[in-house]
Amino acid sequence: MKKRNVLVAQSGGPSPVINASLQGVLEACFEDKNINNVYAAYHGIEGVLLENLIDMRKQPLDEIRRLKNTPASGAIGSCRYKLTEKNTPDFERIIEVFMAHDIGYFFYIGGNDSMDTADKVRRLAETKGYDLTVMGVPKTIDNDLGDEERTIIDHTPGYGSCARYWANIIQNVNEENKGMCTSECVSVLQAMGRDSGYITAASRLADPHREMPLQLYLPESAIPIEKLLDNVDNELVKSGRCIVVVSESYMTDPASQLRDGFGHVEYGASKTTAMQSVVNALNQHGFPVRGQATGQIPGVLQRGVSMHASVIDREEAYILGRKAVEFALSGVNGEMSTILRVSDEPYAVVYKHVPLTLVANSVRYLPREWIAPSGIDVTDDFIKYARPLIGDQMPEIELEAGLQRFARLRLEFVEKKLPEYVPCNF
Amino acid sequence: MKKRNVLVAQSGGPSPVINASLQGVLEACFEDKNINNVYAAYHGIEGVLLENLIDMRKQPLDEIRRLKNTPASGAIGSCRYKLTEKNTPDFERIIEVFMAHDIGYFFYIGGNDSMDTADKVRRLAETKGYDLTVMGVPKTIDNDLGDEERTIIDHTPGYGSCARYWANIIQNVNEENKGMCTSECVSVLQAMGRDSGYITAASRLADPHREMPLQLYLPESAIPIEKLLDNVDNELVKSGRCIVVVSESYMTDPASQLRDGFGHVEYGASKTTAMQSVVNALNQHGFPVRGQATGQIPGVLQRGVSMHASVIDREEAYILGRKAVEFALSGVNGEMSTILRVSDEPYAVVYKHVPLTLVANSVRYLPREWIAPSGIDVTDDFIKYARPLIGDQMPEIELEAGLQRFARLRLEFVEKKLPEYVPCNF
Repeated sequence: MKKRNVLVAQSGGPSPVINASLQGVLEACFEDKNINNVYAAYHGIEGVLLENLIDMRKQPLDEIRRLKNTPASGAIGSCRYKLTEKNTPDFERIIEVFMAHDIGYFFYIGGNDSMDTADKVRRLAETKGYDLTVMGVPKTIDNDLGDEERTIIDHTPGYGSCARYWANIIQNVNEENKGMCTSECVSVLQAMGRDSGYITAASRLADPHREMPLQLYLPESAIPIEKLLDNVDNELVKSGRCIVVVSESYMTDPASQLRDGFGHVEYGASKTTAMQSVVNALNQHGFPVRGQATGQIPGVLQRGVSMHASVIDREEAYILGRKAVEFALSGVNGEMSTILRVSDEPYAVVYKHVPLTLVANSVRYLPREWIAPSGIDVTDDFIKYARPLIGDQMPEIELEAGLQRFARLRLEFVEKKLPEYVPCNF
Repeated sequence: MKKRNVLVAQSGGPSPVINASLQGVLEACFEDKNINNVYAAYHGIEGVLLENLIDMRKQPLDEIRRLKNTPASGAIGSCRYKLTEKNTPDFERIIEVFMAHDIGYFFYIGGNDSMDTADKVRRLAETKGYDLTVMGVPKTIDNDLGDEERTIIDHTPGYGSCARYWANIIQNVNEENKGMCTSECVSVLQAMGRDSGYITAASRLADPHREMPLQLYLPESAIPIEKLLDNVDNELVKSGRCIVVVSESYMTDPASQLRDGFGHVEYGASKTTAMQSVVNALNQHGFPVRGQATGQIPGVLQRGVSMHASVIDREEAYILGRKAVEFALSGVNGEMSTILRVSDEPYAVVYKHVPLTLVANSVRYLPREWIAPSGIDVTDDFIKYARPLIGDQMPEIELEAGLQRFARLRLEFVEKKLPEYVPCNF
């Protein structure tokens, strides 16, 4: 069997454990004698189009091992470049780059859009008679991949760590709000997740016994602002304070929205954020107790702060990277490595693979039965589902001179073999 | 010598280590045989006015020991109630409550406004011939207490932990921004600190060797937005990405500001935040590279997330609480326990006391000589000053069922002895 080269790339927004999947892919490749060179595309598919490839065999193994503890996608870069049917030259270019560098295996770490892209690349290679194995590795803090019944994937790597971020910070915000409620009676926090409420819902993990004055505004509930003001008033009369977690899509005016390369609304760039709209509505409305509403937007911190990473999530992300390689080497093609749950207690999972086409462009919402009748809470079934994902441990953080020691890769590009190319959407 | 009772209270915004000072006060009191009961006022001076006192001797010692790791002021509550000269009935009431409960020692943990209040209470007691010892314990993440020469206090407890929060998260945001720069080229973060730039400046601790594309917009520099847009453009041309930390007071329109009980602007409640103004100005202006600006407002998270607390800061906060008690018992009155630096390397401090009047209503800004000529960076002398405060360790976090285990106090009030009272500003 002729030894082939591997290309790995990331796409879309990062997570605290996306590099763990990258590490899994790399280490599994390094262990296999049928794999020759291992390249990473710099900034995802843009790196493929621009032929910016990094030789991962030249990286010190100690740095590869540090990827697990290195959050976000700074190590090899990601992008939000969308490949659509009309971008024929881009698809042609990808195959040209693959052929020029004898890429036999393409591993793509990403969400639903990325799985769509990966599948299109695989089909084009097939059409051209080019021998290429394509495997996806799931990633998204949003947990919005697959189906509500969780037959495609139980949860996406990254979600557990983002959920742990929210479980942690809501505990801290509760101490803050308890202490300052006579002047700052309402604390508003904006959570990511676009139209899917899994991240907002994770705040409940901070308080599974419902002792905090915590209200969740899930996109799936679509509670109008007037009802939010009522809910907050009622809580203030009861306990003198309130913590409000709103999804980033709450109350946002379409005219205030900017979009990213995928055509999705980029809520972090909104002209008026959900937090700002809610804080202003609350302060204008006034309160039955003394005080003001103040707002927080953790933004990218929820998808990139390693101290809040879930150890379980990190390990699963790593295994999903390894599994994608193992499946590919055993002849699987055009599929995504996936994780399915066997039991909640004790928490147990199995790793399988599912066709990319099943995942591509799927969107999963919080199941209706996990939303409490009030619309501003989740049920115990959601807690049973999400609780194991945050784990029971603190992650180990390597420090150097008091600072976090992240992986340091050598970003030297492999020699280019093709003429320059300008991607369709540049 | 007749045994007297102690009252301890907190005031103003919290810090990740304010409870460490509380623990220091309590443990020093518990060890002294001349002290009878130890009360904590519930929600600071409001608790004194309302005669809401908590018996701290009834708390399990294990819970008292957990205060060190419990962030913010949820344990006994704080407030932003301002006592001014015209509130004569309030001052009279405070002395009445003190007399009714035989308070011989009053320990007030707070910032400049609180030290002013503490001194006024001491003087009124003196005028009335009531035997009262008043001691302040410094606290504020803003580090804006005392004089620029640091003869009154070297740094305030809470600042080291807030600085560590910023050092940590800027490292994480750098990984995020590096990875996502082809679509989210500018990451804007809003830091607390009102008109004092110490917190914004602490971001530099993430990158002491200046390898990140990091720009700091300090209140002391007052860089106009046009210049910010230029600076960002230049960085984008150079490195394709930029991290912008703006002080919360940056670009805020006075018409958009709400004020707290002390009359200070409550930036967390602003109708338009500094982050929003800067993100909108950037996105409207456009960039010399592809991408958008997105924004983050850590808000209260920078003053209350225990995982980022500085171990050194926590220990110092604890000692300052203990010292206030020791000084009081040795006859010092009307002073604040303070920390003065002996050397930067190795980092060494001494604990002293300074008159409350020296601290009261002092405001400290970032010294001009610590601001780099560009106006958007700090000098190495600032790094030398601030670096020891964040320490070299991760704080230990006690977990219980995967969640942070904070102190659980029994909030039972001591029996009231006076008629009800409505505070002047209610």
